[in-house]
This record gives sequence, C-alpha cells and structure tokens, in this order.
Amino acid sequence: MRYFIDSANLNDIKNIFNHLPVNGVTTNPTLLSKSNTTLIQLKELNELLNLQIHIQLQSTNAEAMYDEAQKILAINKNFVIKIPMTDQGLIVHKRLKQQNVTTNFTLCFSLHQAWLAAHSGADYMSFFIGRTEDHGYNVSEILFDIQSAYEQYQYKTKIIVASIRTIEHINASIRFGADIATIPPVLFSKLCKHVLTQNGLIQ
Amino acid sequence: MRYFIDSANLNDIKNIFNHLPVNGVTTNPTLLSKSNTTLIQLKELNELLNLQIHIQLQSTNAEAMYDEAQKILAINKNFVIKIPMTDQGLIVHKRLKQQNVTTNFTLCFSLHQAWLAAHSGADYMSFFIGRTEDHGYNVSEILFDIQSAYEQYQYKTKIIVASIRTIEHINASIRFGADIATIPPVLFSKLCKHVLTQNGLIQ
Amino acid sequence: MRYFIDSANLNDIKNIFNHLPVNGVTTNPTLLSKSNTTLIQLKELNELLNLQIHIQLQSTNAEAMYDEAQKILAINKNFVIKIPMTDQGLIVHKRLKQQNVTTNFTLCFSLHQAWLAAHSGADYMSFFIGRTEDHGYNVSEILFDIQSAYEQYQYKTKIIVASIRTIEHINASIRFGADIATIPPVLFSKLCKHVLTQNGLIQ
Amino acid sequence: MRYFIDSANLNDIKNIFNHLPVNGVTTNPTLLSKSNTTLIQLKELNELLNLQIHIQLQSTNAEAMYDEAQKILAINKNFVIKIPMTDQGLIVHKRLKQQNVTTNFTLCFSLHQAWLAAHSGADYMSFFIGRTEDHGYNVSEILFDIQSAYEQYQYKTKIIVASIRTIEHINASIRFGADIATIPPVLFSKLCKHVLTQNGLIQ
Amino acid sequence: MRYFIDSANLNDIKNIFNHLPVNGVTTNPTLLSKSNTTLIQLKELNELLNLQIHIQLQSTNAEAMYDEAQKILAINKNFVIKIPMTDQGLIVHKRLKQQNVTTNFTLCFSLHQAWLAAHSGADYMSFFIGRTEDHGYNVSEILFDIQSAYEQYQYKTKIIVASIRTIEHINASIRFGADIATIPPVLFSKLCKHVLTQNGLIQ
Amino acid sequence: MRYFIDSANLNDIKNIFNHLPVNGVTTNPTLLSKSNTTLIQLKELNELLNLQIHIQLQSTNAEAMYDEAQKILAINKNFVIKIPMTDQGLIVHKRLKQQNVTTNFTLCFSLHQAWLAAHSGADYMSFFIGRTEDHGYNVSEILFDIQSAYEQYQYKTKIIVASIRTIEHINASIRFGADIATIPPVLFSKLCKHVLTQNGLIQ
Amino acid sequence: MRYFIDSANLNDIKNIFNHLPVNGVTTNPTLLSKSNTTLIQLKELNELLNLQIHIQLQSTNAEAMYDEAQKILAINKNFVIKIPMTDQGLIVHKRLKQQNVTTNFTLCFSLHQAWLAAHSGADYMSFFIGRTEDHGYNVSEILFDIQSAYEQYQYKTKIIVASIRTIEHINASIRFGADIATIPPVLFSKLCKHVLTQNGLIQ
Amino acid sequence: MRYFIDSANLNDIKNIFNHLPVNGVTTNPTLLSKSNTTLIQLKELNELLNLQIHIQLQSTNAEAMYDEAQKILAINKNFVIKIPMTDQGLIVHKRLKQQNVTTNFTLCFSLHQAWLAAHSGADYMSFFIGRTEDHGYNVSEILFDIQSAYEQYQYKTKIIVASIRTIEHINASIRFGADIATIPPVLFSKLCKHVLTQNGLIQ
Amino acid sequence: MRYFIDSANLNDIKNIFNHLPVNGVTTNPTLLSKSNTTLIQLKELNELLNLQIHIQLQSTNAEAMYDEAQKILAINKNFVIKIPMTDQGLIVHKRLKQQNVTTNFTLCFSLHQAWLAAHSGADYMSFFIGRTEDHGYNVSEILFDIQSAYEQYQYKTKIIVASIRTIEHINASIRFGADIATIPPVLFSKLCKHVLTQNGLIQ
Amino acid sequence: MRYFIDSANLNDIKNIFNHLPVNGVTTNPTLLSKSNTTLIQLKELNELLNLQIHIQLQSTNAEAMYDEAQKILAINKNFVIKIPMTDQGLIVHKRLKQQNVTTNFTLCFSLHQAWLAAHSGADYMSFFIGRTEDHGYNVSEILFDIQSAYEQYQYKTKIIVASIRTIEHINASIRFGADIATIPPVLFSKLCKHVLTQNGLIQ
Repeated sequence: MRYFIDSANLNDIKNIFNHLPVNGVTTNPTLLSKSNTTLIQLKELNELLNLQIHIQLQSTNAEAMYDEAQKILAINKNFVIKIPMTDQGLIVHKRLKQQNVTTNFTLCFSLHQAWLAAHSGADYMSFFIGRTEDHGYNVSEILFDIQSAYEQYQYKTKIIVASIRTIEHINASIRFGADIATIPPVLFSKLCKHVLTQNGLIQ
Repeated sequence: MRYFIDSANLNDIKNIFNHLPVNGVTTNPTLLSKSNTTLIQLKELNELLNLQIHIQLQSTNAEAMYDEAQKILAINKNFVIKIPMTDQGLIVHKRLKQQNVTTNFTLCFSLHQAWLAAHSGADYMSFFIGRTEDHGYNVSEILFDIQSAYEQYQYKTKIIVASIRTIEHINASIRFGADIATIPPVLFSKLCKHVLTQNGLIQ
Repeated sequence: MRYFIDSANLNDIKNIFNHLPVNGVTTNPTLLSKSNTTLIQLKELNELLNLQIHIQLQSTNAEAMYDEAQKILAINKNFVIKIPMTDQGLIVHKRLKQQNVTTNFTLCFSLHQAWLAAHSGADYMSFFIGRTEDHGYNVSEILFDIQSAYEQYQYKTKIIVASIRTIEHINASIRFGADIATIPPVLFSKLCKHVLTQNGLIQ
Repeated sequence: MRYFIDSANLNDIKNIFNHLPVNGVTTNPTLLSKSNTTLIQLKELNELLNLQIHIQLQSTNAEAMYDEAQKILAINKNFVIKIPMTDQGLIVHKRLKQQNVTTNFTLCFSLHQAWLAAHSGADYMSFFIGRTEDHGYNVSEILFDIQSAYEQYQYKTKIIVASIRTIEHINASIRFGADIATIPPVLFSKLCKHVLTQNGLIQ
Repeated sequence: MRYFIDSANLNDIKNIFNHLPVNGVTTNPTLLSKSNTTLIQLKELNELLNLQIHIQLQSTNAEAMYDEAQKILAINKNFVIKIPMTDQGLIVHKRLKQQNVTTNFTLCFSLHQAWLAAHSGADYMSFFIGRTEDHGYNVSEILFDIQSAYEQYQYKTKIIVASIRTIEHINASIRFGADIATIPPVLFSKLCKHVLTQNGLIQ
Repeated sequence: MRYFIDSANLNDIKNIFNHLPVNGVTTNPTLLSKSNTTLIQLKELNELLNLQIHIQLQSTNAEAMYDEAQKILAINKNFVIKIPMTDQGLIVHKRLKQQNVTTNFTLCFSLHQAWLAAHSGADYMSFFIGRTEDHGYNVSEILFDIQSAYEQYQYKTKIIVASIRTIEHINASIRFGADIATIPPVLFSKLCKHVLTQNGLIQ
Repeated sequence: MRYFIDSANLNDIKNIFNHLPVNGVTTNPTLLSKSNTTLIQLKELNELLNLQIHIQLQSTNAEAMYDEAQKILAINKNFVIKIPMTDQGLIVHKRLKQQNVTTNFTLCFSLHQAWLAAHSGADYMSFFIGRTEDHGYNVSEILFDIQSAYEQYQYKTKIIVASIRTIEHINASIRFGADIATIPPVLFSKLCKHVLTQNGLIQ
Repeated sequence: MRYFIDSANLNDIKNIFNHLPVNGVTTNPTLLSKSNTTLIQLKELNELLNLQIHIQLQSTNAEAMYDEAQKILAINKNFVIKIPMTDQGLIVHKRLKQQNVTTNFTLCFSLHQAWLAAHSGADYMSFFIGRTEDHGYNVSEILFDIQSAYEQYQYKTKIIVASIRTIEHINASIRFGADIATIPPVLFSKLCKHVLTQNGLIQ
Repeated sequence: MRYFIDSANLNDIKNIFNHLPVNGVTTNPTLLSKSNTTLIQLKELNELLNLQIHIQLQSTNAEAMYDEAQKILAINKNFVIKIPMTDQGLIVHKRLKQQNVTTNFTLCFSLHQAWLAAHSGADYMSFFIGRTEDHGYNVSEILFDIQSAYEQYQYKTKIIVASIRTIEHINASIRFGADIATIPPVLFSKLCKHVLTQNGLIQ
Repeated sequence: MRYFIDSANLNDIKNIFNHLPVNGVTTNPTLLSKSNTTLIQLKELNELLNLQIHIQLQSTNAEAMYDEAQKILAINKNFVIKIPMTDQGLIVHKRLKQQNVTTNFTLCFSLHQAWLAAHSGADYMSFFIGRTEDHGYNVSEILFDIQSAYEQYQYKTKIIVASIRTIEHINASIRFGADIATIPPVLFSKLCKHVLTQNGLIQ
C-alpha cells in the first residue's frame, strides 16, 4: 500500500515528503480553492518530487468535463484525471481512455459502483471510507467485497481509500489490501507515534 | 462479469450500448413478441455492435425444437440457441452440439440442473435468480454451490444470472463470480447512480 | 408481525382486507395525491375496518409540521402521525408526545437514527429496506443491529419495515422479528402462492 | 414430537398402533382412493384408538371447499380439516375458524407461506420436506427459519413435517423441533432398527 | 453427572465405592457370566450401599423378555430393567411401564433411537460411545443432537453414556451434559490422577 | 462427476444411455439375479456403448474370490472387479493388482475404510450414502473427510457414491466433489425436471 | 443508552438540550479552562435542566484529591466526582465511597482496569474509545469483554463511553450496550441527519 | 471475582490490603517456609482483616493428612484446608466434609479433575493456569469447559485460578467468570496502572 | 500416511505384513524386553521385508546415549535412532546428525517440542496422542498446530503419531495429515472391519 | 523461525549456543549496561559463533542517532542497527538505508507501526509481545494482522517477536509464523522440557 497526501497545500506536501515515504497527491476543487495552489505548481511537484498528482473535474456535464480535462492535460499530460462516478462521468471516461489518459473514478460508495469503475477500465477507483461510515454503513464488509471481486475478475484497477480520518481507517485499508491510502496532512503526524514506544524510550 | 441486456427492444439496446460497457443481448419469446423485433434486426445488432445474441426456442418437442433451431441459425449462424432444461431439451442439445452450435441451457433453478447443463457440454447456463427468490429459496447458497461445483469439476460452461430485478441481485452475481449478468433496461439506469455521489458533487 | 397496506387506494385496501389478515395502512403525500383519497375516507377505513392509519406530514419546518399535525388529528385523533427523522422532526415530535399523540418516525436508514427514534419515545419507527438495498448496503445486518439494540435497551418502539418490494424483503422482516411489514398491494397477491402448492393440487 | 401415520390403509394403521406410540393419521384424496377407506371407518379409528384424523379438501373453489368441509364435519366434528395454502383456501379457512373448526394448512413450501398459515390462526401447518428437497432446496434452513419465526412471534400453530421419506428426514424434524412427523407405514419399520443394536445382541 | 460402575465384579464395585462418589451399577449378560455374581448379591449391593442396579434382559422375544423381567423383579422390585432397543423391546417396554417398572433402553446408537426411547417413556437411555466411535462416526455430534432434542421436547429420560473406554469419553460426557457415565473399573483409577498433580506434589 | 447406472436391467441401461450423458454401470449379485442379465450381455454393453462395467464378487473367501475374478475377467478383461472391504478382500485385491486388474473396493462406510482402500492402491472406492444415512450418521461430514484426505495424500483412487436414493444425495455428491455417482434408473428421470422450469415454459 | 454532552461550554449545552434528549454533562480540567465555566454555573445546569454533572479531579496525590473533592461537593453535593484510575485514585475513591459520594473512574483503557473500577464499587466507569483506537487496538473486543464481565459478575457500575469522535463510535456503543455515550457538541448535529432521509424528503 | 493474595508474607499482605479490595490469602508449604509466617499469625489476619485463609496439607498419606488437618483446624476452625487432588486426597476430603470443614481441592489441571472436585462436594477448586500453559496446553479452552460444566450441573464449588503470572491470566480469569483469582504480590502493582492513563494525566 | 507397527513381536509383525500395506516398525525398551526380540532379528526384518526399524535409546545421559547409538548402528546402519526430547537428547542428536544418522525425536507432547525437533533437523518427530488425551488435553488442536507450523516453515521432518489406541486416533491422524501412524497389532484387526460391510455381505 | 538470545551476558549466550540451535543476539542499552559487555566482545561473538548481533541506538535525536550508528558500524559493519519507531528514527533510518546498513525498527506495538517499518524498507521489525499484553491488548490478533499484511503486500521485512516471557509467547510466535523469536536466557531452559517426557522416561 502506498501513501498519498490528500491535500493541495504545498507546505504540507513538502513537509511530509521529507519525513515519510509518500508517492502521490490527491486533490479536489474544494482543496484547491482553499490552498490557492495552481496546476503549474502541482506540475512542479510531479516533476521534482516524482509525486503522482490526481486532479478532479469540476464540471458535471460530459461535454464540459471533456473540455476541462483537455485543459488540465495540456498543462501536464501525466496528471491523473479524477472523474465522479455518474452517467456523464462514464461517457467522458470512455473518451479519455481512447486517448490513453490515466483515470480515477471518484466518489464511489458501493460494490456495484466500484465494479463498474473497474469494468470500464479505469486505472484507479476511489472509495470514500469516512463518509460511508458517517451514514452508519459497514465499510469493512464493502471493502472486502470490492477487493475479492477485483481479485476474482482479475481487474487491474487500483483501489484508493479516500475520506480517511482515523488510524483505524488506515488499519482497515491495510487489512483488506488497499493499493493506496490517501491521508490528510494532520493524520500523517500520528503514523509512527505510539504511547508504548515513547514509554519504552523513557525506560 | 459482463453485462448483457435482457430485452428485445431495439431502442433500449442501442441507448444502453452508447453509455455503458455491454456485450450481449438475451431474448425469449415473450420479449420478442412484445417488441416486434425481427431476427434480421437482431442479426444486424450482432454484426454492427458486436453484441452476442441469445435466442430461445419456442417449441417443446425435441423434433420441433431442432427444426426451429435450424431456421434461426440459417439467418445468423452466430446466434446462441437458448434451450429449456427439459428431457426434450437434452435430446436437441446433443444434436446441436454435434453441429458445433453455441448453446445456452435456460430455465435452470437448482444445483443438479446447473450441473447437468455443464456435464452435457453447454456453453452457457442461465440461472433465474428473481423467480427462485419469489418462492422463498436462498439464491446465494445455490449460486455458490453452482460456482464451486463448476470450479471443482473444471467445467467451462459460463454462468448467466437471469431474472435480475434489483441492485442486490447484481451485487450477489458479482460476489459469487458470475460470468454474465443479464439486466432489464430499467435497471441499467441505477447502475452508476448513488445518493452519496450526488451528495458529494453538491458539496 | 402484522401486515399493513402501503397504499392510499381505497379499492386496493378493501380488496386485500377481504382476503388476508391486515391491520393497518401507511400513506405518504405521494400515495395520497395519486389516489385522490381524502382524510375523511381514511377516517372511515379506521372506524369501519379497524385499520390503523399512518399519515405523513408534508411540511419540513417544525412550526408548520406542528400545525399540519393538529389539522390531521382534528379529523381523527386516532390517526398515527408519520414524522421524517430530521432535526425539525425531533422538535415537533417532542411537542406531539406531550399531547399523547401516537407517532411514527419515518425515513430511517441506519442504526443511529433508529436508536434516536426509540430514545425519543416514538411509538413506531419505519426503516426503508428497498431504498437502502438500492445503494448496496446490507439490510439484514442493519435490521439485526436495530432489533438487538431495541431488545437490549428494552425499548417498546415498534419496528415497521417499509419500502418492501419482494418476497425476500418480507422473509427478511420475519427473520429479524419486525413488528409490522407494510406491503404494496401488488405484492399481496404473491403472499400465499407457490409453484409447488399449485403442483401439489394438480397431482 | 408426536408421530402421525401418513396413510389411509386401516391394516397398516392398526398394526403400527399396536407396536409404536402414534397419535394421529393424515390422509389426502390420493391416499383415500387407493385404500377404499371411508370417513365412517376413520371416525371409528378416532373414537376407538383416540387417533386424531386429518382429512384434506378435494375442491379448489372457496364455496365448494366450504360445503365439502361441512359434509366431512357432519360425520365427525373432531376431524381436522386440511386446507391447501391458496387464496381460496385462505377464504374458506376464515369461515371455518369462525365455526371453531380445527384446521391444518397443507401444501406449504416456504417461510412466507408457513408464516401466513400461523398468522391466519391455523391449528396446524404442514411443510413438505421430501418434495422441497426434490427440487434441490435446503430444507434444514427453511425449517429452522419457520421454527424460529414461530417462536419469536409466539405462534401456537403446530408444525407437521410431511412428505417424509427417510430416517434423515425424521432426524431433521427432531433437530429443528417439529411438533409432529407424519410418516408413511413402510418407514415405521426402520424406526427402532439399527445394525449396531443387532450386532450388540449377537455379542 | 453421576458415576455408575460398568461391572458385575463385587470386589471391584466395593473397592471403588469406598474411594469415589458412585451411585449405581450397570451389568449385562456377559459381565454377569464372567463374574459369577448372583442377582441376590446385587440385591444386597442395592440395599446396603444404596447403589441403583441396572440388569439387562437376555431374551430377544417379547414374550420371553417379559417373563424374564418378572423373575428379576421378583428378587428386587428396585432393579432397573435394561431392554435392548428393538421392536420386541418396545412391546415388552410398554407392558413394563404399565407396571411402573423403572426401565433403561439400551444398545442405542443414533438420534432417532434415543428419541424413540424417550418418546416411549423410558426412565433411562444408554448410548454406546466407544462402539459408535469404532465405526468411525462422530459421537460428539450425535450426543449433542440427543441432548438438545431431549431439552427441546422436555423429556425427563436420563442419558447414560456407556461403552466408555478413555478419559476423553468421560470429558465428552461432561461437555454435552450426560446424566450418568457408566465406567469400567480399570478407568476409575485414572479419574483423579494427573501428571502435573504428581509433579506439583514433588515440588 | 460422471454418472453411472446402478442397475443390471438392459432396457433401463439402453434407455438412459440414449437420453443422458452416462459413462458406466455398477452391478452386484442381487441386481444381476433380478434382471437375468448375463456377463456376455454386459460385455456387449461395454464394447458397443463404451460403458465401463463394475462386477461384484459373490464369494467371501480370498481363494474363492480370486477364482471367481479370473472367470469374470476371462469373459472380458475390461470388467472392473468390485471387492468388498474385508480382510479376505484385501488379500485378493493385492493379487489382482499384481495382474493389473482394475479394482473397486465396495461396501465402504467410514473414513478409515476409504483411506485403506486408497492406501492399498484400488482404482475405485464405493461409499454407500443411503445406507449410512439410514443409521443416522452424517454423510456430508464423512464424505468431506474422505475427499480432503484423498486430496492431502494425493491419492488417485476415484470416489464412487453408491446407495443413492434422492436428488439431495446427488447434490451432496456434487458438493464434496465425487468422481462418480451411480444412480438407480428411477432417479434418472428426475435429473432435469424442475417445477419452475415447467412453470417457465407455460408462461 | 443515555446521551451526555462532553463539553463545558454553556451555550453548546443549552442548545443541544433544547433539541435532543440528553441527560448529563461530562467535563475535565481542559474543557473547563477552555470555556471559563464556573462550578456555580454547572450547579445551575444541574438544578434547572436536571442534567447530571461529572467533574474531574485535577490533583494526582490522594490527599490533595480528597481535599479537592470536598471543595467541589461543598458547592453541590449532587456533582459526580471523576477520579483517574491510578493507585492514588483508588485510595481517594475508597474514602469518598464511605461518604456515599457518587463516583466515576475515568481514563480506563482495558478490561482489567474496567473490572477493578467495578470491583471497587464505583458508580460509573469511563472507557476512552477514540484514544484506544488511535493506538491501533480493537475497541469492539474490549468493550464486549467489559460488558460481558459486568453482566457475568452482576456489577451495577454504569459504562460511559468517552473520547467519541465518529458516528461509528456511537453505533459501537449501542451495539455492545453502553449505559451512556458522552458526545462532543459538534457530533450531536450529525445524530439525526442522513443523506437518504434528505433524499426521501426531496422525492 | 474476588482477589486473593497468593503469599504468606505478612508485610505484602497488609500493604496490598490497604490499597486494594482483597478478600483472602492462599498459601502452600513452600510459601510458608520462605516467609517464616506462623499459623497463629495467619489466624490474626483472618480475625483482624476478615481475610479468608487457605492452608495446604503437606502430608501425602490419607491418615497423615487427616491428622495434619485436625491440628490446623485446632488453631482456627475458619481456616480453609487445601487438599491435593489425589486418591489419598479424596479419602481425607470425604472425612473432612463429614466434619463440615471448608475445603479446597488444589493442583487441578483438567476438566475431569475439576469435575471430580465439584462432584465430591468441595467448596473450592484451584486450577493452575501458569503451569498448564508452561506445557503448551490451551488454558482458555479448559477453563471454559470447567465453567460450563459447573453451570450445566449447577455445582456450587467456587473456581480459584492459581499460578497466575501475567495481566493476561487475570483477564482470562475474568472472561470465563472465575470466582477468585489468587495473585502474587508483585502483580498487584500492575493492576490499575496503564500507560494510556498516565498519558491522559500528563495531557 | 503410512502405517508402522508399534511392536517388537516378530510373529505379529510378519502376520500384519502379509495382510496389510505396512512400511515400518517402532520399538522401545519396554516392547523389546517383553518380546525377547534381538537387534539382529530386527535387522533381518529390515532387509527381508524392507520395513524401516525405529529403535529407542535407553540411556538418559548424552555421553551414554551416544555410545549406545553407535552400538545399534554397528549392527545395522539403516536403523532409525529414537531419541527422547530432553536437553541431553538434543546434544546427542546434534552429534548423530553430523554422522548423517536418521533420527526420530520421541516423547513429544506439545507444539514447542515438536517445533524444536524440526528446527534441530530431525528426520522424524513422534507425538504421543493417547497419553496426551489421558491428561485431558485437546490433541486435535495440538496436531493441527504442529502440522500448520511445519507447513508454514517448510520443515521436512515427518510426523509420526504414536500412542494410538482407537480407530478415532487413526482418523484424527488422517484428518490432520500425519506422515505415519504407528499402530499396535491388536488395532490392525479393526482397520478394515465395519458392521455395515458385514451387514451388506449378508444381504 | 529462528531463535535469538535476548541478552548481552556472554556466559549465557555461549552456554545456550552450545546446547540449542540459535542464530543471533538482540541487545539494548539496559542489557548492555547490566552485563558490562563491550561492542568488541559482541564483534567476536559475531565472528566466532556466526551469531547476528542487533544493537540499539541510545540517542533520540536524528542527528545524534546517525553519529552513534556510525561509531557502532565502525567497530563491525555487520552489526544490525536497532532504531526506535519514532519520527526521528524514520529520518535516520532513511540515511542508513542509503548506506546499505542492515536495520531493525524496534519498539513497535501496532499494525500501522509494523506496516510503516516494512514500507520504509527496514530489514527487521521488532514487535513487543509481553508489554502489549501487559496493557490488556490481544497480541494474537495484532500479530496475525501484521503477518497477513506483510504477506499480502509481499514485504520482505522479517518479524522479530520480542519481550517474550512465557512458553505461550513462543507458541504464539510459531502459530502466526514469526521469522525470529528473541528469548531471554531463563526461558531457554524450558524449551525442550515437558512433564510428560520426564514421565515417559521413568516408565
């Protein structure tokens, strides 16, 4: 499992990169607007630090989404395009795959959506663990179903666990065998800390 | 798992084909008579869209079934012949396999029927999930039994889940590892939709 | 488990009442507007056939909901008031319980909502089985969690399973021990029919 | 669990009665016509040997079923009336219960039918184990579902396991806690025999 | 669970009685002939040491078994009569119960025999654990089935585990909740010994 | 799993052969004497229809069994010799294997017998499902034990399930992965029939 | 399960009290200093709104803790005293129980601490779910162990689940049967909200 | 579960008594000789602190054990006599119970020993958890077997878990429902300590 | 799994060899002294019948054990040396392996001993099933632990199950996948016998 | 699984090395200071006995840790450097891996720490079993999670189980498949000893 940083804040990204083994960055419109980070800056992150950058489309109509994707890819053809799992998203995804764009179906919340993402040939599928749990549903069960379906049908689509809020979410991701966990900066600081480690050092 | 369209309505079929990854069409006498679709039109679907077409025999006597099959194959030798799992069906199936016709044993409702279909060398076996559930029987258990029997005996017969009515039926098909789910048009529209995806887009 | 009829169509209700043991009727704004049934007519059903009638509030603001409830109860104080599980719903519920109105918290989809309904002292809690399953979630698990929580905390709130679409949904309701299953008219006709019963009669 | 004799053959019935603890007799139109036994003779069995006699209605229309039941009860008001689980059966059942007739809903093959029988207030419900198994369905699971549903809802309807063909069917009936097993004469001879008992006697 | 001694050897019985809490003795024709013990001597054991004595019938025909039982009871009406589970045994058992004789159905090897013993009103039922295991069958499963059937049907018949050969057989009897374990003298000496107890004493 | 016909009736065998995929015939002394079929006729079946024929030895003494086997093989060296699992059987088996005769250890009822058959190098081992169940033992458990033992020790001995009486026995054989099910003629007619298939055809 | 508010902010407390059924307030030194709330104000909450108030001792030495407790109780004898689970805490707890003070052992993280709290006679025991999960330990297992230990030993000590951060934590508390969940204000707003409820209202 | 102190060191006992809720003391010859504590001193502990004192016999012969017990009881008739589970121990136990002495069968390591202790009417039975684990055996399983056997047979003998070395042993004792855990002094200091409690206090 | 004969009696060995497939002989000092068999005779068995012979060392001191082994190997270098699992045994084992002697660590009773045997490079490890069961411990669990540990660590040491007393012990050995079962002569006669086989022959 | 010695005492290490198969030594600052062993002496152990030596850094700041490591490696470049799992440790680890130093992340107590160690490319990861159990957490579950995570992600990092105190800890290590168990000298003496082995030798 690789760690991605779920943030568009350049300071946070660079800081984490220096301390921990991370391989990518996931953003969305909300994160980008909060941090005032430009696509040019993200391109630099990609080139300098070899971090894979996932950028989400803001439009909701297939035509507009397609145009938006072209503009993003014009800046850096290595960007991964995040497409919401909707009927419009499926149409634009088909066109982008014909151009060999690397894609990530995002906002997936169920086995049948995850399966459709893989069946459509997406490179990544993002499952939202925290938001699903907020509505009282059993995320372990859904994640195991997705993982065993991908295995049984030998799909190569990689599973990204998103909407991670706690160490327990990271452990759940490890347990079912996620490919990537995308983690908010604030949680990275808890990754190696443990009260018994501190205790052991004092002894 | 591949999606097939369980319909003979040409508009529905073309419409779904444009939006979603589908690979075939299953029909039966009832569906054909409702939609006024001709075998010639189905032949075109097969040739133009590369959709595999499964056509069910209407006769019930072995002799008559055999003649009916010859007429269907005369129109398009790529049609897959759906044969009901009866003793007459077993006789006609044997003769058709000697001609290398591609076959689908349909109207299967139990492990022993599914097993007999595979043992007879059929290419496809159609299990009816909705109708079995209507009578209060546990479809998950039967499907897992069929799947593990096929695996243990290394049969190549592909499992089609038919009589699908709900998203739960599709998920059950994915879970046990079906080869094909044949889905009525009205359910295709629910495949990618999810209330939390919509919610995520609004946020 | 008692059967309720999930309909506002007077013909359907009377027809089912004559053939099967049913104890109540659940309606909502959509059902009422489709059938042109008036509250006066529902009052008569209640008085003549001894069917309990559940009527859902259409307003969404606490103040307006309260006024609407008063008007409904003025027609028949035996009507059960269905209140959506929202923060406004919780406020109006508190006021109605102070008047000893019989209440039903509706549109519940999770353990924590079901628990809050019971903790607030509602007489009924309606869980929507079909809609939850549409989004790929495991309804058996949620229903067992709700039932065992009610048992452990000794709540008296009765569980209504709503949004029932298949015989399997009715069996699931029986299995976890629902108090009431509210069933659409079209499904009532399948309740006693079984292919092996018909077969047995022919023999 | 009590044993009933599934036969209308008077010799068989008397013979078994002399050797084993049995409490009743179940018949149906086929069994009666095969053995040329009259209802008068069955009345005598009931009075002399204190065996409860279950007699099945032959008509299928509610009106005709009702008249037939009246004629049977005119001979002996202690006869138990077996009514097939159909919509017509439900109507005649309602009328017979208003006369306090003892009833048995027969030809039940699923949880929802068994549940409906109990919910309608029948005294007995007959589940057909052999015929269900003939179609490849898991009888243990269905019987346990029925038993736990009756327990949970505290129904008093007694469960008769019918269509028994093997010692395994009797053991299955004991395991889930049936009230009555109705057994064909030929199987009674196997009830106490065991190869290790014989072996032990020889030693 | 009470311990019985499975022996007719008077020295063994008295010796064990002095050291361990035992409540009865089970014999059979083989054991009696080996030890030359008379029924008069067993009567004394019963009266002096308050040990319940179970004596097995040697005849196999109902008429002869009945006569044999009368002779045994003439010596001591407190003797418990062991009757093999056969059809002849069932006939003689019925007659003895009418005399209020205490009975023990012996040579039982299956759930349906154990159930028939209880259903016939026997006071004791002897299950042969060692001989069943000799033929490769799972005794734990059968014993648990018997125990849960007796519990579910609230039978008062006491379960004697016979043909005990190892400490594991005694532990199995305790685990499923046997009423009595009848143990051969040689095994009694192992009952309290344990290598870790000896080890603890040495330390 | 292949189907064998458990019969010596030539009409039955030929009739089934024409309708269903079958590969062999198992006989025993009782079946042969009932049908007046000769070994010459069975030789013809073997040569004309390519059915493998299993013939059981009638003698019980090793010397006599060996002579009997020689006579049978003199008629057709392709006959498979069925040998009862006894100590005399083991001796004759050893001699026949030295002649490269194809053998089938029959009348096996437990894991240790099944294992001994395989360990001795037999080509087939026949387990009697119906007779084991008659005595109240759990056949699924024994069959799974045998199958997993054969797998773990990589034995090539093929498992024949004999004494089959119901569709459930066939399903049990499929579930644990039997190599062959030998089926009485009367059961073959139920193999493809299903009430829901008939129902589907009517619709 | 009752809800407590884990906060010392008077506005938050009053606001939640008006909308939801809550029964108490838990504070600690950190919460009190953040909100500038006085014990006099908490006394008023207790008297006016009938909320039970839990106040944590700041001292760590038994002598100092005892004096601090006396001062707190002098303000309001109904305050519940929260005592950290340490050896000093055990000493002061013993003295306070002799005065019949209501106590809450806080900062418990394991079965043996929870058990010691109950064994010492505390009225409440606070388990910290979030902090335990932060260190990678399985909270469900610990909570079930604590609950079943309290049940087995019939302790009356009430279990408070503290350090709650997510809806999943609340559901976990309901599942194992907590007596009280103490919830931070920000989480209360999520308690009744559900995306499918909103969705249902729109329809 | 009550705590006992497994020690004969008076300072340790008094020290623990002042800080933690303890109810008794268990000693054995080794502990007594190490600490130079007299039976008179233990009598004082019993009278002043109300601690129950268990004293183990040193002799191994029944006659000598009986005399030793009389001397111990002459000092304080409230002492509980610990008797090793041997055949000599069973004889002396029988005599002591006739005098109504309170007894504890010690050095028990298996279900059958534990069961024999209870069946003999002992008041306490001591199971040695650490020593059993030293030899690689599964103590949880044995303890659960003992507990469920005592429950099923409704024995009143109290279970003491001895040879406790770790917090895990104490938790295991709580989980299966021990009556008493006898703990060495050094482990008492770990009972309330927890690294997360310390951590919480620092925060 | 291969069968070994656990005996030094030459007649028994030859007799079994003639009837059943056996591959070796295990002896120990007790068996040898009982039968007056010499090592020369065992050498002949090894050479004539190709039976592998395992001979146990009688000395307990490493030096003496080594000398004793040299003498045994001088007679036949193919003898397998059985070494008790003690610290002295470990020392002598190391020296014998340097000479490439084939070794068998005997008197193993736990996972950690079995593991140490394999880790030390022994060719065989003998686990004593009957003696372990005598002390009330769960042999299935220990054997499965040993088997899965050997598998996980890919050890080649072969597992011999010794101290076999019942058919159940042989079945347990087959179930967990033992390499060798060493069986006392008296049990060999039960290996192929089964009451249902005898019964089948009579029919 | 290999055994390491958890000690810096030269006599202990040499003594164990002579009797048992051991492959390495783990030390820490506390062990080194207790035993007055120098790094030069440990270098000799490494060279003479081919034992791998793991040495823990005492500094806590990344800069200081790096310098300390250089000094240790200057003495013997084959030493394995033990680095506590902290943020400073992660930084120094990255630098040491760039020099191809063999590393061991120590003081790990959870799945996420163990996973981070492997993800960072450490050669060894030390999990502390005893200390985790001291705080009441389930070590088996954590170890199985770690092992299956390493397997699923195909990490090569070897798992060392440290803080071992009992035979049960060693068995737990074997069960989950640890690579190395580092054991304190005092426990080595228990490794081959078993009360039933001693008992067997005496017989």
